[in-house]
Amino acid sequence: MLEQLAHVGRDPETGGYVRDAWSRADLELREWFAGEAGRRRLDLREDRNGNLWAWWGTPSPRRPGVVTGSHLDSVRQGGAYDGPLGVVSAFAALDLLRERGVTPAVPVGVACFSDEEGARFGVPCVGSRLLTGVLAPERALALTDDDGDTLADVLKRAGRRPDALGRDDETLACVGTFVELHVEQGRGLAGEGRPVGVASAIWPHGRWRFDFRGRADHAGTTRLADRDDPMLPLARMVLAAREAAERRGVVATVGKVRVSPGNANAIPGLASAWLDARGPDERAVRALVAELAEAAGATWPALAPQASPDDAAAAARAAAGLDDAAAPARAAGLDDAAAPARAAGAGDAQALATRAGAGDPAGRARSAGTGGVVVREESWTPVVAFEAALRDRVARAAGGDTPAPILPTGAGHDAGILAAAGVPSAMLFVRNPTGVSHAPDEHAERADCEAGVVALADVLEELCR
Amino acid sequence: MLEQLAHVGRDPETGGYVRDAWSRADLELREWFAGEAGRRRLDLREDRNGNLWAWWGTPSPRRPGVVTGSHLDSVRQGGAYDGPLGVVSAFAALDLLRERGVTPAVPVGVACFSDEEGARFGVPCVGSRLLTGVLAPERALALTDDDGDTLADVLKRAGRRPDALGRDDETLACVGTFVELHVEQGRGLAGEGRPVGVASAIWPHGRWRFDFRGRADHAGTTRLADRDDPMLPLARMVLAAREAAERRGVVATVGKVRVSPGNANAIPGLASAWLDARGPDERAVRALVAELAEAAGATWPALAPQASPDDAAAAARAAAGLDDAAAPARAAGLDDAAAPARAAGAGDAQALATRAGAGDPAGRARSAGTGGVVVREESWTPVVAFEAALRDRVARAAGGDTPAPILPTGAGHDAGILAAAGVPSAMLFVRNPTGVSHAPDEHAERADCEAGVVALADVLEELCR
Repeated sequence: MLEQLAHVGRDPETGGYVRDAWSRADLELREWFAGEAGRRRLDLREDRNGNLWAWWGTPSPRRPGVVTGSHLDSVRQGGAYDGPLGVVSAFAALDLLRERGVTPAVPVGVACFSDEEGARFGVPCVGSRLLTGVLAPERALALTDDDGDTLADVLKRAGRRPDALGRDDETLACVGTFVELHVEQGRGLAGEGRPVGVASAIWPHGRWRFDFRGRADHAGTTRLADRDDPMLPLARMVLAAREAAERRGVVATVGKVRVSPGNANAIPGLASAWLDARGPDERAVRALVAELAEAAGATWPALAPQASPDDAAAAARAAAGLDDAAAPARAAGLDDAAAPARAAGAGDAQALATRAGAGDPAGRARSAGTGGVVVREESWTPVVAFEAALRDRVARAAGGDTPAPILPTGAGHDAGILAAAGVPSAMLFVRNPTGVSHAPDEHAERADCEAGVVALADVLEELCR
Repeated sequence: MLEQLAHVGRDPETGGYVRDAWSRADLELREWFAGEAGRRRLDLREDRNGNLWAWWGTPSPRRPGVVTGSHLDSVRQGGAYDGPLGVVSAFAALDLLRERGVTPAVPVGVACFSDEEGARFGVPCVGSRLLTGVLAPERALALTDDDGDTLADVLKRAGRRPDALGRDDETLACVGTFVELHVEQGRGLAGEGRPVGVASAIWPHGRWRFDFRGRADHAGTTRLADRDDPMLPLARMVLAAREAAERRGVVATVGKVRVSPGNANAIPGLASAWLDARGPDERAVRALVAELAEAAGATWPALAPQASPDDAAAAARAAAGLDDAAAPARAAGLDDAAAPARAAGAGDAQALATRAGAGDPAGRARSAGTGGVVVREESWTPVVAFEAALRDRVARAAGGDTPAPILPTGAGHDAGILAAAGVPSAMLFVRNPTGVSHAPDEHAERADCEAGVVALADVLEELCR
């Protein structure tokens, strides 16, 4: 089935995929999903937030089902596997269950979540965040793409109803368990010599936009001493992010930059950089962001929604862990699989998600700037530790004779959003020989993909007894 | 007249102008030029390279005229004066000559050069460079804009003939003398308390593209140690450029950056930065570029078209002046008006322009990269010292009782391209109270603009006796 999709949104020059949410490529992929659902006589539904569900059996809040699936959109110039492998494997596993003559005791669903990557509007997991209510619909609708079109405009053009967006408890209550299969985005399984693994936790991760403001002027006639060139603090932030990430045992990336007006012969007036930061320890990630914001001259406010203004400064340091975060982060290390689970329990993570997550418009607007820099938190997802009992059950079912290995991931997923919303969730990973992800070279061997389908079918069979 | 143009290509949000060559705004401005020519019963011609000429009297190679004018395109988010002030003042000065009852002994022309800023295709002064033959038509036609359209595509769409482009000696031979009026792009005249000045020289200046290649990968799952992130060397180059510019007494700017694929959650595969560098001393400018290219890991080849491969390394150091350029650059200083003229005579400059200039496709393709960086020279304009006798005659005519002050500029102009091609040329500057240029705040007082028109009329009257 993956071959059927190989041409959609493919850049012939690079071999990379560009499948922005609600683009022509995305609409074509949605049509393909509907076709696969129809061929299997599954009951196709698109929920109020644009997520697709293909049901074998009829679920209800009193009879929730076992759901598997992933997403079909991509990052720009991404690979063929991230997302589609999970959807294709879901249909294939369902076929396998039917071949085996399994009669599930509960409905089985295949899901395709909308706009998981956030390539177009900057916020990832829009579909699952809206569904679970951690992203406010008014905020989502106001997001703009590079052309200045809002999500509301884009949805209208695609024939959808923007006013229908928002938390959808009825749909969510139909999901008893969610299992997402995904190509691995590192070399953990390659190291273990196993084709399939199970996720322990998703690292806490977030995205911050740094707007450096300067004074646009002529590149030839403005003396160096008279310049206020925002490229300089941007460059310093990029280098500081790497240095601080090494020191604090997290990862930090500036993968998107916008310099305006962008004339080669003019000093820019504005230079924006997007910082992505993740790590096993939540406090270390937040401390990194606070350190960079402070170094750039921004006063960085607290993650302290209950605090009075007087408490803000103290809370800022406490929440960001400015004084003590580095040590535990170093101690936890990048390879320690259990660290995310230790750093915050699932309960804590959920509470933090509600307090500081994308659903809080006040939190989103939180920004501060002095001396020409404004830092905005565009998204924040606390650590997600998948339910241990489900995880172990999935690992046993997926592993054949030996339980599948359990490993953490630095990547965000819809399964993490559902888990944080209280839906028992798990993830299967399929071996990625090079570990390359979000790039054209992303790959999984055909045999490993087939092993993934078998493992997923085994897991579904176990869960829908 | 400037008010008539105030709306064309104006961004209502910023007040800045976006008048890309051959855009709808540019075509509207060309229409306006044609209308003004018609109202004055001037003979309108568009040459093979898209430059517009409005003639009072009929010039020929045997009866060349005195021409004034400038350009109508803008940098992106530029100001209202850079370019249009020179064209508007040209028409107004011609009106003044007629009011005075002047009967010119030679034809008088108003010129509007095509694509002076290079905002769309990256190469400035395309119209005048094509006209004088320093830009090869095949290279110009292959230039691409941000949408991937070539200049050839764009010209065809505008109803022009791409195959007609190229050196046009017949048109050029009709230009006996060229005088360009321009808003000043610094605060030299503001400091002198004079509304109008005359150019001594244009600093040598160029544009280099640094392509840093890395390996695109996932921002969350790729360990820091496994990354090849091109944002890091880009950031180092930005900071090194500023430091080296201060040390070498030149100016250097990174005003345009492109990071691809540009996902906030992915390590980029390619990060490109455009370096603009200028200064009074040519060797110091070239040494700065060589220093940055070498620091980034590129082997930077020589400006030595006659050299055998064996000579290249030695010639590189000599041409770039790696060992000794810093000292003279520091000695010349930024404020030393006479330095550019001293640094290279007009004859030398012209020779260099032919050897290393934009007209040399081999030169353009010259690039080198090891360790993931490729540096390309996109344009290079050696110092242009305007003819001293003409300069002094213009200063006397423009200054009233006291000759107008003479000052250098760090900005490139079509007058510089014509001067380098052997056309006696001069420039008038109109006071800019803040010195801001290439930005919405660019400004000149109405009284100063009127003084500029009177000065230009005085100069034309003197030159067309």
